[in-house]
Amino acid sequence: MTTAGQVIRCKGGLIAAAVAWESGKPLSIEDVEVAPPQKDEVRIKILFTSLCHTDVYFWDAKGQDPLFPRILGHEAGGIVESVGEGVTDLQPGDHVLPIFTGECKECRHCLSEESNMCDLLRINTDRGTMIHDGKSRFSINGKPIYHFLGTSTFSEYTVVHVGQVAKINPSAPLDKVCVLSCGISTGFGATVNVAKPKKGQSVAVFGLGAVGLAAAEGARVSGASRIIGVDLNPNRFEEAKKFGVTEFVNPKDHNKPVQEVIAEMTGGGVDRSVECTGSIQAMISAFECVHDGWGVAVLVGVPNKDDAFKTHPMNLLNERTLKGTFFGNYKPRSDIPAVVEQYMNNELELDKFITHSIPFSEINKAFEYMLRGEGLRCMIRMDA
Amino acid sequence: MTTAGQVIRCKGGLIAAAVAWESGKPLSIEDVEVAPPQKDEVRIKILFTSLCHTDVYFWDAKGQDPLFPRILGHEAGGIVESVGEGVTDLQPGDHVLPIFTGECKECRHCLSEESNMCDLLRINTDRGTMIHDGKSRFSINGKPIYHFLGTSTFSEYTVVHVGQVAKINPSAPLDKVCVLSCGISTGFGATVNVAKPKKGQSVAVFGLGAVGLAAAEGARVSGASRIIGVDLNPNRFEEAKKFGVTEFVNPKDHNKPVQEVIAEMTGGGVDRSVECTGSIQAMISAFECVHDGWGVAVLVGVPNKDDAFKTHPMNLLNERTLKGTFFGNYKPRSDIPAVVEQYMNNELELDKFITHSIPFSEINKAFEYMLRGEGLRCMIRMDA
Ligand SMILES: NC(=O)c1ccc[n+]([C@@H]2O[C@H](COP(=O)([O-])OP(=O)(O)OC[C@H]3O[C@@H](n4cnc5c(N)ncnc54)[C@H](O)[C@@H]3O)[C@@H](O)[C@H]2O)c1
Ligand SMILES: NC(=O)c1ccc[n+]([C@@H]2O[C@H](COP(=O)([O-])OP(=O)(O)OC[C@H]3O[C@@H](n4cnc5c(N)ncnc54)[C@H](O)[C@@H]3O)[C@@H](O)[C@H]2O)c1
Ligand SMILES: [Zn+2]
Ligand SMILES: [Zn+2]
Ligand SMILES: [Zn+2]
Ligand SMILES: [Zn+2]
Repeated sequence: MTTAGQVIRCKGGLIAAAVAWESGKPLSIEDVEVAPPQKDEVRIKILFTSLCHTDVYFWDAKGQDPLFPRILGHEAGGIVESVGEGVTDLQPGDHVLPIFTGECKECRHCLSEESNMCDLLRINTDRGTMIHDGKSRFSINGKPIYHFLGTSTFSEYTVVHVGQVAKINPSAPLDKVCVLSCGISTGFGATVNVAKPKKGQSVAVFGLGAVGLAAAEGARVSGASRIIGVDLNPNRFEEAKKFGVTEFVNPKDHNKPVQEVIAEMTGGGVDRSVECTGSIQAMISAFECVHDGWGVAVLVGVPNKDDAFKTHPMNLLNERTLKGTFFGNYKPRSDIPAVVEQYMNNELELDKFITHSIPFSEINKAFEYMLRGEGLRCMIRMDA
Repeated sequence: MTTAGQVIRCKGGLIAAAVAWESGKPLSIEDVEVAPPQKDEVRIKILFTSLCHTDVYFWDAKGQDPLFPRILGHEAGGIVESVGEGVTDLQPGDHVLPIFTGECKECRHCLSEESNMCDLLRINTDRGTMIHDGKSRFSINGKPIYHFLGTSTFSEYTVVHVGQVAKINPSAPLDKVCVLSCGISTGFGATVNVAKPKKGQSVAVFGLGAVGLAAAEGARVSGASRIIGVDLNPNRFEEAKKFGVTEFVNPKDHNKPVQEVIAEMTGGGVDRSVECTGSIQAMISAFECVHDGWGVAVLVGVPNKDDAFKTHPMNLLNERTLKGTFFGNYKPRSDIPAVVEQYMNNELELDKFITHSIPFSEINKAFEYMLRGEGLRCMIRMDA
């Protein structure tokens, strides 16, 4: 039976989505209708999805205009079920990663070699509907359920704009490469695409969560001689050893700013630093700890609304570089398939990021692990 | 008669130096003894020198520990008269530019491809003596007169560390390439070595003094499509037209921040900006006016001690790059000879920067022009 062009309805529990009805309340698995993909859209059968902090942030919805009911989820791997009008480069059966930020391939950003901040499809956390008609493709008894980041992967089927879909090697294991949809590509790309350490250089990584450890993995792959991990939570240090982190600094263990500690450890500063915390203090330290003359600091963490980055301009004039990046500067459709190949060629390790695995029915456990700071990524199996 | 190895004494007014005896008082031309160059030093007959703001700043000596009596001057061209022990790559008769920041060719900075901030010879405004023995080479009746920036070019002869001497093409006119010793290389290099606009890109230049106009010249040479000049002083705009500046913005003419004005003019921001003012507000505007996704802002101006560079970190995360540069990232000995060649090949214009010319005896006029903000560079002829 082909489902293309038809609303997919839950029959006998076969098709289910985890709906967030209210901020901070456990998700509930519901029978959901998924409308057919419209112009430039793709309907995807999700096989694996994992939980990222951004999901928890918008579920928690503190200090935001909350948008509920909503289907969260944006790290996932699946198979195209059907495509809407005008979609020519994807077809049913293609293995894909939906991605929270898109690539229209036509705007100035998409045409620029440097930017991945597509004018049409860059991340939009407020939008709960599809661009084409401003409507949702999800409903329960005719009542719409909002989308999240254009991906909403906590559902057996979802509808995504074609510009947010990376077509990947069908032999890649989706339960592993799934994590390249967000955090791991973000951290890895921040190092290899933006900080670009040269072989033998030293790299400091601030924050040893999944993103920071992916940044460390990027430093390891780049042949960094020293990888200095900085975190306020000493529990992170043991896990980080698996990721090539060679030294650890806990700012709490020192009476002076961590940038001074690092300058002393390295004879003036590290060659590169990557900040993956979201803490403004860590952003400033990550900048000030790079060596004058050639040091490059890269900011990844998402700051608070009222934060201000503050430093003495002399720190810049002394020939330091400060950059920020979004999704590791990868263009989702053009670049992510090649990152999947890097994994397939053992040039990049992913398995060590996946510390838990649960069936979809237990999705709320993934939230608990993350809230307790336990492990890195929890793989959620949709078929189980 | 060879003078090598001997103290050069003023005889009958032949050898003279302009001495700053006190802060803010006119220089007085004095008969000065110039000791022979010691280990790794070079004695240079100065033929032309020009006045830069840094000379005025240390002559004025506001808010500094003043060091007087002192021989100022650091933009100059001359001919090697004699060399000290260990100097092998220069010999009497070589045409040279003394430079306020040096290149030892051995430290980590000199060995790095990126940095020109030599550990041994980077700019030091406090030192008034030679590194070799902590003594001055200038004296009047046995009483030492302090050096300035290791160059002290307001003298018919001066002694300079070999690491601060660029050997140039002897057919280059010293009364023109003289200005490459400091400000012009700083601005030009900030654009071509650091901001690196691509052909057809837009560039904003903040501050249209000599440094900013040299940055504009770098943008012109790079094939920028639009060069937007920003200055608080509208008198600067007429002169700036000669330097390829195509549009002008005076922040005083607008009710909103200049970065917003520029974003509107350019559909989201310029591709590159170069700040050449020293004003912290201009530094922040220069950063925030570059386009997200790919914009690069370069800071050149020397800030005040208590300034803080402050911006929302989201401006960085949106893939802007912020850098600072010192002497346009040129390594003085390795790179400046090639910049002189660029001038010789008409790839870079210098003549338009030289707006005045006076004999050495009238050096105080150069200070007056600069204090009145009149013109760009005043060439001081030592032989006249
Ligand atoms: N730019 C992007 O495209 C993008 C994409 C995904 C995630 N992110 C951001 O990256 C950051 C990291 O994500 P994650 O999933 O790894 O988070 P995480 O919470 O798992 O890890 C952050 C780590 O930083 C540590 N930390 C917090 N403040 C610190 C400080 N001042 N000094 C040192 N360590 C400190 C915490 O102890 C924690 O271990 C978050 O801000 C997230 O929003 C950005
Ligand atoms: N980094 C280095 O290696 C290096 C070398 C030489 C000079 N400099 C610095 O470069 C800067 C420029 O030098 P210059 O000789 O051209 O100086 P200048 O005084 O001739 O020119 C500066 C210009 O900036 C303008 N200006 C001041 N504040 C402004 C603002 N907020 N917005 C817009 N315009 C503003 C002034 O009106 C003036 O026209 C100075 O700070 C100088 O110290 C740095
Ligand atoms: Zn686009
Ligand atoms: Zn994420
Ligand atoms: Zn050196
Ligand atoms: Zn100067």
